[in-house]
Amino acid sequence: MVKRPTLDELDLSLGKRTRMYRLLYEHGPGNGTALFLPIDQGMEHGPSDFFPNPPCANPDYQCRLAKEGGYSGIVFHMGLASKYMREYAGRVPLVLKLNGKTNIPSDAEAFSAQECSVEDAVRLGADAVGYTLYVGSPSQDRDFGQLGKVRAECDRYGMPLIIWSYPRGSAVAAKGGRDSIYAVDYAARLADELGADIVKLNAPKFRDPRNEDSPTPYRKLYQELKELDDDEAYRLAVEKVVATAGKTLVLFSGGSRISDEDLLTKARICMEAGSTGLIFGRNMWQRAFGEGLAITQKVKEILLAL
Amino acid sequence: MVKRPTLDELDLSLGKRTRMYRLLYEHGPGNGTALFLPIDQGMEHGPSDFFPNPPCANPDYQCRLAKEGGYSGIVFHMGLASKYMREYAGRVPLVLKLNGKTNIPSDAEAFSAQECSVEDAVRLGADAVGYTLYVGSPSQDRDFGQLGKVRAECDRYGMPLIIWSYPRGSAVAAKGGRDSIYAVDYAARLADELGADIVKLNAPKFRDPRNEDSPTPYRKLYQELKELDDDEAYRLAVEKVVATAGKTLVLFSGGSRISDEDLLTKARICMEAGSTGLIFGRNMWQRAFGEGLAITQKVKEILLAL
Amino acid sequence: MVKRPTLDELDLSLGKRTRMYRLLYEHGPGNGTALFLPIDQGMEHGPSDFFPNPPCANPDYQCRLAKEGGYSGIVFHMGLASKYMREYAGRVPLVLKLNGKTNIPSDAEAFSAQECSVEDAVRLGADAVGYTLYVGSPSQDRDFGQLGKVRAECDRYGMPLIIWSYPRGSAVAAKGGRDSIYAVDYAARLADELGADIVKLNAPKFRDPRNEDSPTPYRKLYQELKELDDDEAYRLAVEKVVATAGKTLVLFSGGSRISDEDLLTKARICMEAGSTGLIFGRNMWQRAFGEGLAITQKVKEILLAL
Amino acid sequence: MVKRPTLDELDLSLGKRTRMYRLLYEHGPGNGTALFLPIDQGMEHGPSDFFPNPPCANPDYQCRLAKEGGYSGIVFHMGLASKYMREYAGRVPLVLKLNGKTNIPSDAEAFSAQECSVEDAVRLGADAVGYTLYVGSPSQDRDFGQLGKVRAECDRYGMPLIIWSYPRGSAVAAKGGRDSIYAVDYAARLADELGADIVKLNAPKFRDPRNEDSPTPYRKLYQELKELDDDEAYRLAVEKVVATAGKTLVLFSGGSRISDEDLLTKARICMEAGSTGLIFGRNMWQRAFGEGLAITQKVKEILLAL
Amino acid sequence: MVKRPTLDELDLSLGKRTRMYRLLYEHGPGNGTALFLPIDQGMEHGPSDFFPNPPCANPDYQCRLAKEGGYSGIVFHMGLASKYMREYAGRVPLVLKLNGKTNIPSDAEAFSAQECSVEDAVRLGADAVGYTLYVGSPSQDRDFGQLGKVRAECDRYGMPLIIWSYPRGSAVAAKGGRDSIYAVDYAARLADELGADIVKLNAPKFRDPRNEDSPTPYRKLYQELKELDDDEAYRLAVEKVVATAGKTLVLFSGGSRISDEDLLTKARICMEAGSTGLIFGRNMWQRAFGEGLAITQKVKEILLAL
Repeated sequence: MVKRPTLDELDLSLGKRTRMYRLLYEHGPGNGTALFLPIDQGMEHGPSDFFPNPPCANPDYQCRLAKEGGYSGIVFHMGLASKYMREYAGRVPLVLKLNGKTNIPSDAEAFSAQECSVEDAVRLGADAVGYTLYVGSPSQDRDFGQLGKVRAECDRYGMPLIIWSYPRGSAVAAKGGRDSIYAVDYAARLADELGADIVKLNAPKFRDPRNEDSPTPYRKLYQELKELDDDEAYRLAVEKVVATAGKTLVLFSGGSRISDEDLLTKARICMEAGSTGLIFGRNMWQRAFGEGLAITQKVKEILLAL
Repeated sequence: MVKRPTLDELDLSLGKRTRMYRLLYEHGPGNGTALFLPIDQGMEHGPSDFFPNPPCANPDYQCRLAKEGGYSGIVFHMGLASKYMREYAGRVPLVLKLNGKTNIPSDAEAFSAQECSVEDAVRLGADAVGYTLYVGSPSQDRDFGQLGKVRAECDRYGMPLIIWSYPRGSAVAAKGGRDSIYAVDYAARLADELGADIVKLNAPKFRDPRNEDSPTPYRKLYQELKELDDDEAYRLAVEKVVATAGKTLVLFSGGSRISDEDLLTKARICMEAGSTGLIFGRNMWQRAFGEGLAITQKVKEILLAL
Repeated sequence: MVKRPTLDELDLSLGKRTRMYRLLYEHGPGNGTALFLPIDQGMEHGPSDFFPNPPCANPDYQCRLAKEGGYSGIVFHMGLASKYMREYAGRVPLVLKLNGKTNIPSDAEAFSAQECSVEDAVRLGADAVGYTLYVGSPSQDRDFGQLGKVRAECDRYGMPLIIWSYPRGSAVAAKGGRDSIYAVDYAARLADELGADIVKLNAPKFRDPRNEDSPTPYRKLYQELKELDDDEAYRLAVEKVVATAGKTLVLFSGGSRISDEDLLTKARICMEAGSTGLIFGRNMWQRAFGEGLAITQKVKEILLAL
Repeated sequence: MVKRPTLDELDLSLGKRTRMYRLLYEHGPGNGTALFLPIDQGMEHGPSDFFPNPPCANPDYQCRLAKEGGYSGIVFHMGLASKYMREYAGRVPLVLKLNGKTNIPSDAEAFSAQECSVEDAVRLGADAVGYTLYVGSPSQDRDFGQLGKVRAECDRYGMPLIIWSYPRGSAVAAKGGRDSIYAVDYAARLADELGADIVKLNAPKFRDPRNEDSPTPYRKLYQELKELDDDEAYRLAVEKVVATAGKTLVLFSGGSRISDEDLLTKARICMEAGSTGLIFGRNMWQRAFGEGLAITQKVKEILLAL
Repeated sequence: MVKRPTLDELDLSLGKRTRMYRLLYEHGPGNGTALFLPIDQGMEHGPSDFFPNPPCANPDYQCRLAKEGGYSGIVFHMGLASKYMREYAGRVPLVLKLNGKTNIPSDAEAFSAQECSVEDAVRLGADAVGYTLYVGSPSQDRDFGQLGKVRAECDRYGMPLIIWSYPRGSAVAAKGGRDSIYAVDYAARLADELGADIVKLNAPKFRDPRNEDSPTPYRKLYQELKELDDDEAYRLAVEKVVATAGKTLVLFSGGSRISDEDLLTKARICMEAGSTGLIFGRNMWQRAFGEGLAITQKVKEILLAL
């Protein structure tokens, strides 16, 4: 089993260490794992995501869920953070998302433009910033340049940097797709190389036949996993990318709404495979408040069991 | 009915609170609602808009109308603000429009370039700035970057930010068009996410069959509204987008000249549905001065009745 | 008849007022009108323009003409201003042209790049700066951004801003062409909106049948002008654009060499229609020095007769 | 035989001289030659490169190899340097790679975007920075501009600049390819012209018939080398590019994994031909640790024999 | 005969005057004329240019030639200047070339990117900077912007600016080609307009039938020159462009290697026609050192005879 890095093992500046301590020990499960509640979908997908549970269109809904559910942090873009966090200040750690885009125009040259700064995050009392990197996009040169400046500001202010490391673009599609083991593994390494403290990844689709289109070592790995049962194969695929992320702590996302059983399985396997935490949004707030709290507790039990 | 946010409920800096107090309580109706007079059409559409009422080509016409009609503010680009506002200084609040374009070249990649700054607005004694965001345009990355810097300057100077949130581009057209409920709703959320204090929206066209091309939840909403009478459907459509805008105050635009009856209906329904105010231009100044004053009073009565 | 704005009526900073006083009262006709001598054609068109009168290829020729003819100012790009103005310092006001281009490559996306600054103009003792704006060009976003920064610098230093407001591009061509009443009128308004103190326009071609392709109000205006005799139609067309320019003082250009009679007619009608001045280049220096002085005096008589 | 420049002969600032002394005399062979261990392949190629020897996916593996093998320095991007170097600080000199890219999207317009700075290198205690220049790429204008700023910062901080000078693009392909003598020779000169202190080159493929497509002098050189035996031709080809690099010290890369015999031949000939050092990555760490140490010693013997 | 401007006649800042005095009177012929040795071909053309005389691949060769031959200055890019000039400091004036490119990719949109700065030139003790402007290139807007900033820095530091004014691009080709009288003449004027102190031009090809494709005045000039003998036509063509350059001192380049007789004829005619100097590279160093010195003396005799 891959061992998740502890805060003590990491070589962090005092500012980063202080803020990460809050995320890993003061809030959330409190045992060095983390559970984040993202609410950037209103920008990334539009309000469509809120129809299954209309009250969740009000960001206060997620703030309350984060507080009552005892999340490690909530993820907001600048506008929502500054308008809705007042009564949760200090009670729910803020992860400020620095860049974003809508899903309306083509993302053939996917690029997520920065619209607020690390300094904004400092002013708002945030404990980390989020940055979306589109791995493999034809716009990677702009992305690297933009991220480089954000990373330097994070170093300057002692602000932890969470990279949403998302494979995108036709070249990725041609090599197995954005959720192939190949693509997720490259995304994990890239975040480590570019200075992420934490990386958010999608769990690799280890049964998707498109893995056959990936470079040879990954094609072989995919074929080897075919010999194993689902749970074992899942664990090995996740362990691979967690190991690749190295000293970068890993969060796995929940993605679109799935069954509770699948969600808890995902949580369990990802954590057993060395992930430091989870970042589940739609699966938590696309349901009635009480149900959201209940599933939150079940996920936290998995985190606390480690 | 959606409740419009009051100034007291909003978490605003002292500078923003002071200036928004002027717009919402010192000028205009004075009861927390607002009526703005925009005169940026000479740049956006060219002088063609002034032919129906030639005197209105002189910006002093709109200044007088704003003053005598008791508007909450007048919207100018930099050139007109600095040349025509002298005798209205302090009497009519200024909203300085920071970016703009002509309607001459293709707007396939619509982008409105910044030509003056928040600092200019401070120097001119403005009480808010305006920024046009083209939601869904292929140029969204440049737009987000440009807006992000404006937003930060607004925070720095305590200057309220009004976003003209306008869906544009072929991807929008393919999903129901720029005035579909889907597009306007996304535009409302995006303004909230990106840090608008106030958002200017076009009222959604809730009867336009192109809503059928929108993502499923909106298609269904459109179909549900078909069952209702016009007034009720109108109200529900507007309530939807006002609710989506959240803690961002909403202004609805008047658009091109319509009948007085339609205009007053629009005003009444938008306000009943939770809008904070209206921003009516051509419908006010594309007619004789006395008529403009008269229709202004009728609209203000609706605002005062709330 | 359109009344031209006087300096006293304009709301100008002390610096702009001082420099514009020099241009309008200390030099040139001295009665509040202006006659400028531009010599930027060597960049914009190349030395071809100098063949009809070889001595005029030496910029000293234009300096002498400007001084002996008593012009309100001479227009130079940076290189010529700094090399040729020494003995004319204080005697001939300098208008420093800030941006330019050659006519060699395609101007399908016409854009005139800035190559010197308002600070350069201050250092050279200039009394105004010139900026070419290509109205309707696909590059309008870059143009607006560049102009916005120049305009802000002008405000900072109290330097009058003269915009060469030139319609360009295929979208302009499709709506009547660069000299249509529509295009020139839009150009006049745009300069006013973007903060010009003075705008240089080409006189509209009110007889050109391409005006039929313009938006409806302009098509109708063109048709109405067909009913009038040439002089009356000319005056009305010019009055229209002068009125549109509002508090921005208007200069009409001479364009390429025309007959003396046509030139003087143009001068007379433009001035009677409310123009503040003229900016004639090739018509003045594409002839022998004595002839240039003589035609200068005839034009100045028209200006002085107002 | 080409004589390699000594540190004393070079005109270097005190800061550059101090840091280069550490690289050339305090660490590595210690006789003025150098052996570097690069570990930027995780970004440039992705984790595929680590499958032949799984432990090498952990950057600590390379750190240990660099320390125990006594390398002159290790090459890291920012993220890995700041996370993995703590226990090697001062023991293994750091070369911080400033720009990078993935190999996922097309490299038709190859450009490696800067993601950290010379100031970062200073803060991390690095003894040199690395910059990848794509010689002949259509993006050369952006590359030159970016490199120029890096070079100026290196001068400011006294930081040695190592240029990875890599021919790329269709125009290079048309003239013999990226490893033709022509392309490598041009790359060597360009690094010298642009201010490299050290240049990393690939050894030219002196037997590749595509050299026939190179400009005449190189085509002739290729044909002359055909007359010679492999060793002699190899040496002459390398001497040519080392001579062209002039006062820029040359490192030759190992490229993808080759046989030990070929690797040692390459090392011997390159060093005999005047190279200052070698930069071997995959050939060192794509094997068991002990084997990696053993081959390291064999290469160092060649360096020490000079 | 065109009279070349003397230093006393030019309106220059003290810094520029001091440095130009060094170039025109302290070094080189010493009589107000100049002979420069450029060695930027290793970047612009690659090392191919050095095959005819292998020792010249070492920049020290050109340094020695410049010193022993008594040149007015040597032209280097940053890398070579800082590595090779140590023992020639103060003995050979340095002209630092600020921008450059390789000849590998297409130059359809020719643009020479800046890679060092005027401040670098000051720090290196240079007496002038060189800038390549591609007249007529589709990239002229970037070029004008980049040059404008360089020009301003030159004014700030009192550093003479030499513009390599080179016509390029398909629009130039369509009007007679890069060496047509039309193109060279436009290039001369443009340098004067954009603030060059000195302009480097290629001698116009006055016999090339492609001059027929140039604008009418140049077509006629070409035809008139056909009536004259070669020497007379050459002189008149050169006089034309020297006159057009006005107060900008003109240097003519030698281009690729030609016969000694042709070179001396070129030198003589260019100087008689008013050129201030010559900038000969390949014709000087693509031969044995002694021969290079000998031809240098012959050229200097022409300069001294004036």
